[in-house]
Amino acid sequence: MIDFPYLKEIVQTTESKILMVVADGLGGLASGNIRQSELEAARIPNINRLAQHSACGLSTPVAPGITPGSGPGHLALFGYDPLKYLIGRGALEAMGIGLELKAGDLAARGNFATIDSKGNLIDRRAGRIPSDQAAPIAKRLNKVSVPGIEVTVEHVLDYRFVLRLRGENLSDKISETDPQITGVPPLKVEAMESNASATAQAVNMFTANAFKEIADESIANALLLRGWANAPSLPSFGDSLGLNPAAIAAYPMYRGLASIVGMKVIKTGPDFSSQVQTLNDCWDAHDYFFLHYKFTDSAGEDGDYSKKVTAIETLDSYIPELLELNPDVLILAGDHSTPAIMGAHSWHPVPFLIHSKWTHGEGVSRFNERELRQGSLGVFEAKYIMSHAMAHSGKLSKFGP
Amino acid sequence: MIDFPYLKEIVQTTESKILMVVADGLGGLASGNIRQSELEAARIPNINRLAQHSACGLSTPVAPGITPGSGPGHLALFGYDPLKYLIGRGALEAMGIGLELKAGDLAARGNFATIDSKGNLIDRRAGRIPSDQAAPIAKRLNKVSVPGIEVTVEHVLDYRFVLRLRGENLSDKISETDPQITGVPPLKVEAMESNASATAQAVNMFTANAFKEIADESIANALLLRGWANAPSLPSFGDSLGLNPAAIAAYPMYRGLASIVGMKVIKTGPDFSSQVQTLNDCWDAHDYFFLHYKFTDSAGEDGDYSKKVTAIETLDSYIPELLELNPDVLILAGDHSTPAIMGAHSWHPVPFLIHSKWTHGEGVSRFNERELRQGSLGVFEAKYIMSHAMAHSGKLSKFGP
Repeated sequence: MIDFPYLKEIVQTTESKILMVVADGLGGLASGNIRQSELEAARIPNINRLAQHSACGLSTPVAPGITPGSGPGHLALFGYDPLKYLIGRGALEAMGIGLELKAGDLAARGNFATIDSKGNLIDRRAGRIPSDQAAPIAKRLNKVSVPGIEVTVEHVLDYRFVLRLRGENLSDKISETDPQITGVPPLKVEAMESNASATAQAVNMFTANAFKEIADESIANALLLRGWANAPSLPSFGDSLGLNPAAIAAYPMYRGLASIVGMKVIKTGPDFSSQVQTLNDCWDAHDYFFLHYKFTDSAGEDGDYSKKVTAIETLDSYIPELLELNPDVLILAGDHSTPAIMGAHSWHPVPFLIHSKWTHGEGVSRFNERELRQGSLGVFEAKYIMSHAMAHSGKLSKFGP
Repeated sequence: MIDFPYLKEIVQTTESKILMVVADGLGGLASGNIRQSELEAARIPNINRLAQHSACGLSTPVAPGITPGSGPGHLALFGYDPLKYLIGRGALEAMGIGLELKAGDLAARGNFATIDSKGNLIDRRAGRIPSDQAAPIAKRLNKVSVPGIEVTVEHVLDYRFVLRLRGENLSDKISETDPQITGVPPLKVEAMESNASATAQAVNMFTANAFKEIADESIANALLLRGWANAPSLPSFGDSLGLNPAAIAAYPMYRGLASIVGMKVIKTGPDFSSQVQTLNDCWDAHDYFFLHYKFTDSAGEDGDYSKKVTAIETLDSYIPELLELNPDVLILAGDHSTPAIMGAHSWHPVPFLIHSKWTHGEGVSRFNERELRQGSLGVFEAKYIMSHAMAHSGKLSKFGP
């Protein structure tokens, strides 16, 4: 949607409100002895009733057969072509812990590591040092100074941290420092483009100084850096679509994703009931709402089939409260599938419905992978979800005379 | 289809004939108390029988969520990418009243307006002056002369007219003259590209002279010009596809659309029975026929549900006569949906069938929005309709060795 070439000519502002509920990893799968997908097994009377009066289909997040990460999965839901707008690993990791990224910032994922007296790697993960030991060492790294650059290191989990560099002309076109084997020293960073050589020098100065700073640590006396990424720069969601968008998400990564497309990220609590309360509180102030529900994905990632079924049923129980807000357009979508029997994200098309006064029953009686194929939207690219949302809310005028 | 990169290599000429029946605004919608779409409510035994032996689906005219005008809607049906080939407003307006446009011509939509003695606008629509008063004033404007340019002004309806300029190097990259407010004079035209400055000068001369010509009119003593458009230039439909195409349409706009893609536009009467007679008359002389049926769209635009149902039933009654011609390929398609409950064009996918000796039943028993989703074509882009037509008529050889 965002790249539709005549968007400016057809976008129009209306009073109508769009509520997009994203159940993370919504799609599931049946296989072998498991005869029903999680959605088929769940008791979801409210969602099913909604589906009976909605336009339905299955969305393909990126392309057939492609399993998306959370970044591309969400960008597609927001109307961005996930193959055009990329978010680097370092940037997504920073978002995941709520570390702010401004345009020009450079981020990387860091590992603590162990080196011997000659500087050769003994352990590329510092014995998988636990969080309570790693966090203070990450803190020490904030003392490392590089001229002209603001250094921020934030602990993530166990032996992992995020490095954020803020300064002039920092480029992510530099190589990684992990040699992938032990017995050799960490690699120096090299510029992969000519205008990245200043960045490479600065990063090499950072690692040299960092090694000195933590040389006295017994296990985590070194570090490895990878996944270099500049803060992504995307067209504004709100400006492009004439919307005043709000994001309500409990997890930092999704708040970060909403933030980089320019949505207003609303402060909310850790559980879904707080999120729904927040939605109610800010309902009058916005016209588009991204409401993120994490628990379908985490249960799927855990490979916990019945936990995922329960997560779906819990979401179902909130539908009446969401409908009471009387959104002009209500969308239930997922950023990708996370079948519990796979215990991971997958490429399977994702259940989707859109409900408005311009939808009617399509003969779909239940919201699940099998039935939704019968919907009028067929199997379609997720980047068009916002096109449907805009059309159903009267926010697009006619294209062409 | 037209932009398929190896079209020349695979197009082959055969004796077979393609009949494409376009029911304008065919798709409808049920909502609220209206439990059935117009197609579901209509008694259409002939079309349903045809659908039972056809390849079926729903076509997306431009892109999901995008509501097309008649221009993009028809270009897609003719196999053109409607986002690549654009028709400007002025050009379509000219087509709509049957005013011929040649390559290089420049057209604009005109309004009569009222100005005071100082030249400031009092009424941007000249009191919505009725046709019988406006037509003679439009005629007067044909006397306005601009050196080197042939000026044609043709009345459209009420206070509206079309201006056509014919000359050398006329560019549509010029600004409009409507200031959108009253109390100020009409704007002068400005060149939006350097090579448009001669055109801007010529147009400013036209308006200055036109104002003198109609200065004595009491209400319509001025005019405003907008929607500048050069005659569109498209690859020839017939040459690209190896077809000898005929267009049979009662309304000027559709004759114009067929004409700009190079179809032979056959003279016909104002009602559909005359059109079908014309089809019979020219059957031997062509191998592709665009037969346009307007009444589904006009009923939909009127928001008249039962009139649209009747229009569909009327079309159904002509199917036996069309089948008697024994076309090798028979297509029933629409350029967009016009649900009566919306009273306007919409973005909803459009019912489609193609019948040939290479189609068989697909389990679709009735031709309507709900059932056609089950067809083998799914929900697909309308620009591929001509690919199907060409394939089913044996006019495309194998692609690649």
